[in-house]
Amino acid sequence: MLNVGFDISLSQLMDAWPSVPWVVATTPPSEYGSWVLAGVLLSLVTIYLASKLGGELSKRLNLPPVLGELVGGVVIGISALHLIMFPENTLGANNSVIMGALQWLGDLDEQAIVHIFQSESEVISVLAELGVIILLFEIGLESDLRELGKVGYQAAIVAVVGVAAPFLLGTVGLVSLFSVPVIPAVFAGAALTATSIGITSKVLSDLGHLKSTEGQIIVGAAVIDDVLGIIVLAVVASLAKTGEVDLLNVVYLIVGASAFLLGSILLGKFFNTSFVAIADKLQTRGALLIPALTFALVMAFLASVIHLEAILGAFAAGLVLDETDKRKELDQQVMPISDILVPIFFVTVGAKADLGVLNPAVAENRAGLIIAAFLIGVAIVGKLVTGWAVWGKPGINRAAIGVGMIPRGEVGLVFAGIGSASGVLDRPLEAAIIVMVIITTFLAPPLLQLTLKDQSGAEAITGDPLSATE
Amino acid sequence: MLNVGFDISLSQLMDAWPSVPWVVATTPPSEYGSWVLAGVLLSLVTIYLASKLGGELSKRLNLPPVLGELVGGVVIGISALHLIMFPENTLGANNSVIMGALQWLGDLDEQAIVHIFQSESEVISVLAELGVIILLFEIGLESDLRELGKVGYQAAIVAVVGVAAPFLLGTVGLVSLFSVPVIPAVFAGAALTATSIGITSKVLSDLGHLKSTEGQIIVGAAVIDDVLGIIVLAVVASLAKTGEVDLLNVVYLIVGASAFLLGSILLGKFFNTSFVAIADKLQTRGALLIPALTFALVMAFLASVIHLEAILGAFAAGLVLDETDKRKELDQQVMPISDILVPIFFVTVGAKADLGVLNPAVAENRAGLIIAAFLIGVAIVGKLVTGWAVWGKPGINRAAIGVGMIPRGEVGLVFAGIGSASGVLDRPLEAAIIVMVIITTFLAPPLLQLTLKDQSGAEAITGDPLSATE
Repeated sequence: MLNVGFDISLSQLMDAWPSVPWVVATTPPSEYGSWVLAGVLLSLVTIYLASKLGGELSKRLNLPPVLGELVGGVVIGISALHLIMFPENTLGANNSVIMGALQWLGDLDEQAIVHIFQSESEVISVLAELGVIILLFEIGLESDLRELGKVGYQAAIVAVVGVAAPFLLGTVGLVSLFSVPVIPAVFAGAALTATSIGITSKVLSDLGHLKSTEGQIIVGAAVIDDVLGIIVLAVVASLAKTGEVDLLNVVYLIVGASAFLLGSILLGKFFNTSFVAIADKLQTRGALLIPALTFALVMAFLASVIHLEAILGAFAAGLVLDETDKRKELDQQVMPISDILVPIFFVTVGAKADLGVLNPAVAENRAGLIIAAFLIGVAIVGKLVTGWAVWGKPGINRAAIGVGMIPRGEVGLVFAGIGSASGVLDRPLEAAIIVMVIITTFLAPPLLQLTLKDQSGAEAITGDPLSATE
Repeated sequence: MLNVGFDISLSQLMDAWPSVPWVVATTPPSEYGSWVLAGVLLSLVTIYLASKLGGELSKRLNLPPVLGELVGGVVIGISALHLIMFPENTLGANNSVIMGALQWLGDLDEQAIVHIFQSESEVISVLAELGVIILLFEIGLESDLRELGKVGYQAAIVAVVGVAAPFLLGTVGLVSLFSVPVIPAVFAGAALTATSIGITSKVLSDLGHLKSTEGQIIVGAAVIDDVLGIIVLAVVASLAKTGEVDLLNVVYLIVGASAFLLGSILLGKFFNTSFVAIADKLQTRGALLIPALTFALVMAFLASVIHLEAILGAFAAGLVLDETDKRKELDQQVMPISDILVPIFFVTVGAKADLGVLNPAVAENRAGLIIAAFLIGVAIVGKLVTGWAVWGKPGINRAAIGVGMIPRGEVGLVFAGIGSASGVLDRPLEAAIIVMVIITTFLAPPLLQLTLKDQSGAEAITGDPLSATE
């Protein structure tokens, strides 16, 4: 009942009289709202400081800013300062420095802190997810459907080779070199397949190479191999479970994904004109932004509901709206939103990365590290070769395409999570997959910059001339 | 570990195989993350549709858009469609249409839905709170410290009269007319004191009157009476508890609030120059926006920690940054963020308003409605007179100032909440306070427009010439 600010002030007041038993006794958990907000505010401040310090330092060192944001996240996260923590980590609310500060400031009990920690983490996680949704929406807005169409075949071949090569190399290598049983080897091989589109597209955008032919091939291939990765996961998980492949589910995923991506583009042709007509008719604030964002959120929701990733929906929405006359204006308005939400994503990615698994002093890490070294090699080589699978584009920067596909992310970690939950993966193999994801993520931005820098001198002219000024 | 997207895909996959017991069994609640995100996306889409439909309709009817957003919220909230619900309502997850849709889409069990509902509501509530924080930050940016200083005395007198008049009228009236005992009467009288700054400032901004003398007096007075309201609450609550006033706490609040507001402005004079220097040195995206927003969030956090409202901190931060050369640029970048966050606040305010208490067919509402009618009268008259307390500003629109102070909000509801939790207020009196808050909130925007429209013809020239184009 009109009480948005209610939780805040009530618990602030509760806190002003910590000795009032009747207030405390009748206080449901939602009345900790003030402290949840305080926790979120403090977390956001920490995240922004880490992202700016890291990003600026990275820029000064001539590295992509996103690398600094990731490292900034590592510094404030589970691996170092324990400022930004998440319940998924084995360490709980007790180890979060921010929660400790709130506990001290508010004289809160253990139960309150656990509740506040859960809620605050949930809010930051959702903000991070909204961040990557906005990032992909923006990438979609900056991508050109026609340009993407021109490189469609190349993107598809890069995606297919980039899924097949690391999968086969990884599985065969694990069986023959490390005597891993077939099922876990297949699982780990599958974990090597999907590129993390977020990292790569952000680096490309930062470097002004998003609209180059290479950039468009990489983005297209990353979108396709994200879908392929989800399908491979479906196959492998049902193989691990029953020893058989649930064909129906695989067909459902393939049909669903294709229908979604193609359908959204076709629908987009129709929606374009009506979108502009609607935006022109609106007279209140946010006349352009709110309809555009609503469309992106609807697409993200639909993608998530049909078991694709929400970010694919946002990307499709961006592609569609890129076709309208309002593109420029929309770009401009989405930028500040992206500026404040996207760093939350990259910093939390860093904050959640537990570099503890890299410590060779811990005995149980060592077996994992050796396998990890192998997986990292396969992860890099298996994607690097994709550049040389591109045909019909003479003079293209093949190394850049290969390098652009290197970073792994979400889908790889889903494999590690399901694999260990189901008992298919033992602890060293699971740790090795996590190490592979961390290393490829952190390695790709500087490598990508390196390979693209070569191009700037030689072949940048073939790219979009606008991209250099981005 | 790098698993921002992890929760999403894992639970999507879980869902793809609802019959896999080992996955479900080892799934902690955080793995419902995908559905939490889906719930948030669907809620945001609903909120944006309601806000745009309501706002545009309101605009077409020549009413302030914010009124339409509030009504849009009522339509999708607890009073009507049950789309956007909150756990504070007596109706739970079972009655939320969005949760029902997710349950159907994901074949989720009861426990999952309760968890998802809690998390989704927490996220939407925090987004709404961030919305009002950004709104007050923007209002601060649009306000001018010097202009505000010029009307400082007037604002103070309006605030003091606007706290004293409804408090005395309300308390005495309840005791003499309704034979309410003294303590509950004092409590209810105190609930009439604090103006809701969010509603009023948004209407002023929408109408382009924020920078007029009247606008600045209203905003200044609303800020001061928010602080006064928090102090009154401290006095009344300790009176209700022990029969005595905890003077130490009252002094602490007064000193704290004054120190915070004055300190932030003094500190601002110093921070201004270093802020511009910092922003100029940054080379990565969001170079201006992120430092500014971080400052606003720090101030909001500090205000919240010293038991003021977070929005007062954000307002102070906006005032301070308004003094910099970067004001225009910052204004422009904050606008899209405000466009997407502020509607969440107003729509949830509407969604949380339970108009059920207005239904005279329910017997227990009737006693409350009669008292409510009295409280509403006092709430309006008690603030209207403040316009005539302004001296030294000949030709000022006194009615507009009085009307601008009418909407009550958060603090009034805190009184209702604490009062009913402690047993000081009986059910009719509590309901009457809630009805008073709802009615004054919905009444103020059209009334304010009406009184300001008179002015547009006659005295708008005395205001900021820029304001008309806002």
